[in-house]
Amino acid sequence: MRKGLIHIYTGDGKGKTTASIGQAVRALGHGFKICFIYFHKNPKKFGSGELKILKDLGIDIYGFAEHHPYFDKDITFDEIRNECLKGIEFIEKTFNENKYDMLILDEINISLRDKFLKEKEVISLLKKKPRNLELILTGRGASKNILEKADLITEMKKIKHPYDQGIKGRKGMEY
Amino acid sequence: MRKGLIHIYTGDGKGKTTASIGQAVRALGHGFKICFIYFHKNPKKFGSGELKILKDLGIDIYGFAEHHPYFDKDITFDEIRNECLKGIEFIEKTFNENKYDMLILDEINISLRDKFLKEKEVISLLKKKPRNLELILTGRGASKNILEKADLITEMKKIKHPYDQGIKGRKGMEY
Repeated sequence: MRKGLIHIYTGDGKGKTTASIGQAVRALGHGFKICFIYFHKNPKKFGSGELKILKDLGIDIYGFAEHHPYFDKDITFDEIRNECLKGIEFIEKTFNENKYDMLILDEINISLRDKFLKEKEVISLLKKKPRNLELILTGRGASKNILEKADLITEMKKIKHPYDQGIKGRKGMEY
Repeated sequence: MRKGLIHIYTGDGKGKTTASIGQAVRALGHGFKICFIYFHKNPKKFGSGELKILKDLGIDIYGFAEHHPYFDKDITFDEIRNECLKGIEFIEKTFNENKYDMLILDEINISLRDKFLKEKEVISLLKKKPRNLELILTGRGASKNILEKADLITEMKKIKHPYDQGIKGRKGMEY
């Protein structure tokens, strides 16, 4: 059985989540069973374009901690941490069931960067990865210790972004 | 009518083509009409996973200069250049017809890097872009003058790649 790798897409440039979506589409074309799990995204605002298509393609989709204090002032740190921990529990369950060939943990690096998850919790998760599973982590600010566990790392480096021209997030482009 | 931007995904890391595919999927979820044009790829070897899915999703797909001397020793420079020029002609035709909301020119930066296309030919093309079209160029080695024309640039920077461990291109991952 082929060995699955740990991939990380990090950095401040555009293309981290979209690369993971593209990777899912490529793998799907070869018959992979795929699950896309997102953190800190309210699907009514972000991801609505891609999530609909991925779902229609038969990719399982789950979201945890759909809020982030940056966008929702009413939510507490503990509420978000508990949601993230539910996410970790859910991911471990899919590991135990060996249910997927590819698992995407979209923006999980943000859960770590913003301390909703502890580094040791995510490293412990990575150690439990089934041998054949391809595991993709996205989000800016991946820590050194997490990067060390990866087989493939790309830093999406922002050279130019329309935000800098004052162009706001646009439907079909950023969400 | 919203203004379409020029996006460039370049650099030596994994995620350039996959980010453009993910972007297409996201835009498709918002009803964009999309065309994916690839250069220097033999679809029997590369892209077979994603092209099948994108086609099924209703994205128009065209390939030009499906060979590259690196992989096919029998092909001449002039043959490849002529194929690339046919690609440019085709792209201009879609511009004139205003047929798409998003056009992806996958690996066109390679056509330039390897001199199959002249910089002035591609810059002239970019100048003819319909106002509302989102135009995405991928491939390593984008030149300074081309980058200057872009609104959004991400450098996909390789931090770690399984090739370095001697792991070859894998089905569902690199193609």
